[in-house]
Amino acid sequence: MGAELSAEILRPKASGAFHSAEEVLAIRQAIRSGVFATHTSGLAGGNVQGNVVILPKADAADFLRFCHQNRKPCPVIALTEPGVSALQTLGSDIDIRTDVPKYHVWRDGQLAETPTDITHLWRDDLVTFVIGCSFSFEQALIEAGVPIRHIEQARNVPMYKTSIATTAAGPFSGPLVVTMRPMKAKDVIRAVQITSRYPEVHGAPVHLGDPSLIGISDLSCPDYGDAVDVYDDEIPVFWACGVTPQAALAQAKPSFCITHAPGAMLITDLLNNHLASF
Amino acid sequence: MGAELSAEILRPKASGAFHSAEEVLAIRQAIRSGVFATHTSGLAGGNVQGNVVILPKADAADFLRFCHQNRKPCPVIALTEPGVSALQTLGSDIDIRTDVPKYHVWRDGQLAETPTDITHLWRDDLVTFVIGCSFSFEQALIEAGVPIRHIEQARNVPMYKTSIATTAAGPFSGPLVVTMRPMKAKDVIRAVQITSRYPEVHGAPVHLGDPSLIGISDLSCPDYGDAVDVYDDEIPVFWACGVTPQAALAQAKPSFCITHAPGAMLITDLLNNHLASF
Repeated sequence: MGAELSAEILRPKASGAFHSAEEVLAIRQAIRSGVFATHTSGLAGGNVQGNVVILPKADAADFLRFCHQNRKPCPVIALTEPGVSALQTLGSDIDIRTDVPKYHVWRDGQLAETPTDITHLWRDDLVTFVIGCSFSFEQALIEAGVPIRHIEQARNVPMYKTSIATTAAGPFSGPLVVTMRPMKAKDVIRAVQITSRYPEVHGAPVHLGDPSLIGISDLSCPDYGDAVDVYDDEIPVFWACGVTPQAALAQAKPSFCITHAPGAMLITDLLNNHLASF
Repeated sequence: MGAELSAEILRPKASGAFHSAEEVLAIRQAIRSGVFATHTSGLAGGNVQGNVVILPKADAADFLRFCHQNRKPCPVIALTEPGVSALQTLGSDIDIRTDVPKYHVWRDGQLAETPTDITHLWRDDLVTFVIGCSFSFEQALIEAGVPIRHIEQARNVPMYKTSIATTAAGPFSGPLVVTMRPMKAKDVIRAVQITSRYPEVHGAPVHLGDPSLIGISDLSCPDYGDAVDVYDDEIPVFWACGVTPQAALAQAKPSFCITHAPGAMLITDLLNNHLASF
């Protein structure tokens, strides 16, 4: 695959158009080779994307309990045995050591490295969690005629820490992190209906309207991702976000841990449409 | 049935409790006899209530077309042949001439009378339309733990004319009328989910948030019904309302027409739960 072809494929498609299975493989190859190393918003819109948390086995049991206690932000869509880097249920060729565009490597709760490949860090005791991502329902929203501002503006989705506490499990605790999408009222109503069909990727919103009611003081200063424009006739709508574990990891300060960089997701072979209930 | 018994029955029940079929018959008897002549909000919460429009056959065809073109505010749940006062599909003993708590009689578009019985006005050419009412989904909201302010405050629901135009049919046109229920954000999300299950009784909201975006300048001055308190941490949520035909009748000015008084509904034997989809 030449560089020109890859540049073309790596652009988000126009409204409603999917990347083919072949193109998704090409996108994954571009990620694997380090050519594509940024956020995946709007990319491979038909495919399930995942948040990633990789922890030593010693911490994984507590973290699984944390996910179970906080299923809205942390719906686990895949979980490996220690040391296994393949994720067969998400894609036959996926290798978690190479197939995330950008990783965050944490040591004692501090961000230590942001590599595009973690093969050099791999260990036999590492357990991988893949957690559903709200990018999965964005395609359904776009197909229903609901515009997504951060895709329109070619930005990463804005993410915020809230005043809503997660349920603690072992050392893991901390604030619920949310994504925000501003919409007109009629689209808010459609968005609640549509995203309710996707409980495995955060489902219905957790809040809408006044950001201060959930402890967000300034929408223009997200904690992760990019700010987007919010117009006067729009309502900000907030969904639980799979970056919530990263806030919990910052509190728990495990000696070693690897996550995706917020917004730079694992692209799987699963199709979003296959997740929908009703 | 003694007056004491009827006074007891005519109080709305506590959250989640239904009136039995026998009690509903007693309520209808109290309405029929003129003892109960006010709004039915919170009453017979398990039962479908209906908006009523009675028109001469000459106007009924245009009006049916109006309902069909505006199905969100005007879902027709029953329609009679000319001159028939029974509504067998809604309740075996219903007589539309006596079983609405209070009627509005319109002549040339002007409110002429507000009787509790229209037997003296009945004609062989009158066609009755019964249109779904949002009271039907209130019981489902209460059962889901979503408080309804106007029931809490023992008032009629507030209703407003909006700047949203209906689709005209013959002489019938005019603004969409909406009901308003203020709620906290988490309840707004639940309310969209729950009311979406009830398309026959107006379904999902048509708007939420800033009232001025749909032409409502002051929530404390409803066009029909009673104002209710709206607290700082609440969002007003608006549903299409079966009083919309009354605004259309005010424009069309048919020589003769009878409706229910807003909020004073026909109580049927149908159960709201039987309307739910999903």
